[in-house]
This record gives sequence, structure tokens and C-alpha cells, in this order.
Amino acid sequence: MADQTYKILLFMKRRPDISVEAFRDYYESKHAPLAEKYSSGVSRYIRRYIDPQPHPETGEFTDGPDVITELWFDNEETYRGTLAYITTSLMPDEIIEDEKNLFDRMAFRIATVVERESDFSNA
Amino acid sequence: MADQTYKILLFMKRRPDISVEAFRDYYESKHAPLAEKYSSGVSRYIRRYIDPQPHPETGEFTDGPDVITELWFDNEETYRGTLAYITTSLMPDEIIEDEKNLFDRMAFRIATVVERESDFSNA
Repeated sequence: MADQTYKILLFMKRRPDISVEAFRDYYESKHAPLAEKYSSGVSRYIRRYIDPQPHPETGEFTDGPDVITELWFDNEETYRGTLAYITTSLMPDEIIEDEKNLFDRMAFRIATVVERESDFSNA
Repeated sequence: MADQTYKILLFMKRRPDISVEAFRDYYESKHAPLAEKYSSGVSRYIRRYIDPQPHPETGEFTDGPDVITELWFDNEETYRGTLAYITTSLMPDEIIEDEKNLFDRMAFRIATVVERESDFSNA
């Protein structure tokens, strides 16, 4: 994409004893508002809840994340600082305590992305 | 998000004998142009190449996809038709033959998403 947006992706699974519905509801009503307090410098904070679909050859998507949370940044320095922080440091206690209500924390994964897009403007 | 955009996500891993660089180069230069021929009705065709980052508790992201390919649709009926097709039918021979040059095809996974976003408009 042409814009200069910097993105951190958090791949996360729910606690196995929590339903998909309860997980999404708790994240939206309780955890996201808490995390927003620590989101200064974040331009967009998006939860992308994954609905597994079957593949005709490989079957149901049973081994994926329940959510991919995206943190977007307009400012490269803020992005780099946040990435350095979350890849090396534990979150504030308040966040970690609430994560325990929601996530299989040992399944947490972090990634950044390089995005390429087809140009359909003349299609 | 407020807009009515419909999205299909394809989680895919590269062939283990291919480097990250060769995978991205081949996908962009050879496979994406081929796939574009079959992308009528797709509003955006985006390859999001994953750069694994370490997590301070769970370590390096070694078990994830190499790319999440996104197919976006403005038209719900086209989206539903495409989803029904790719979750039940094999791709055209030409696509599958080229996929073998690139992917660990048994790692293919398909998902749709429910997206929620924090409102930072008053921040």
C-alpha cells in the first residue's frame, strides 16, 4: 500500500474454557477499554475475530488464532518504540491480570507485516 | 468498521525449501499476476507477508503463516459465492500447479473475520 502506516499484529487464542461468544464479548466490553488506556500513539486499534472456514483439501481451520489484534501507527518512531517495548517487556500488571481472564497467554505471538496489493484501478 | 466490506483471509506457509525472500519474490512476480486473472469481483487483493517478532514470554513466532492473503469484496453476493467456491472446490489447474512451486499446500487455512475497532476520534 502506498501510505506510510506501521502495523503490529498480535495473534492470540482464547482460554479453552471460554466460548467464542464470551471471548469476543469480554474483549470488547472489558479488555479493549482497558487496553485503550495504554494506547497513546496508536492511530488504530482493531480486533479481527477469526471465523474458521473449511478448506476443501486441508479441512477446518482448527489451529489458528481466535483474534488478530492490530495496532496501527502513523508515526514511525512511536511504532518502533512500541515494537521494542512489547517484544522485550511485560505489559503493565493491570493488563496482564485481565489477559488471564481471556487468553491462553502462552499462545501469544507477535508479527509485523510487509504488504503488497494488486492494482485493480484499471480493471 | 463502518463500511460494508467483505473479506476472505487465506493463511499460507511457504514450501520449506524456499527462503522467505524467494517466496515473496515468486508470489509477487509470478503467482499474484496469475491469480489476478481469476479475481473478477475482488475489490482488493492484498498479500500481507508476516515478519515474526519475539514475544517476551512465548518467544519467536515460528508456527505462523508466511503470508495472510486477503480478498476483499464490495458486493456481498460475490463474496458469498467466492467463499462457497473456495471452501468446497479445487482451484483451476493452472493455479494449483503454480501453488506447488510456492506453498506448503497442506498448511492452507481459510477464515473470514468480524472486525471491531476502537474509536479514537476524540482522543
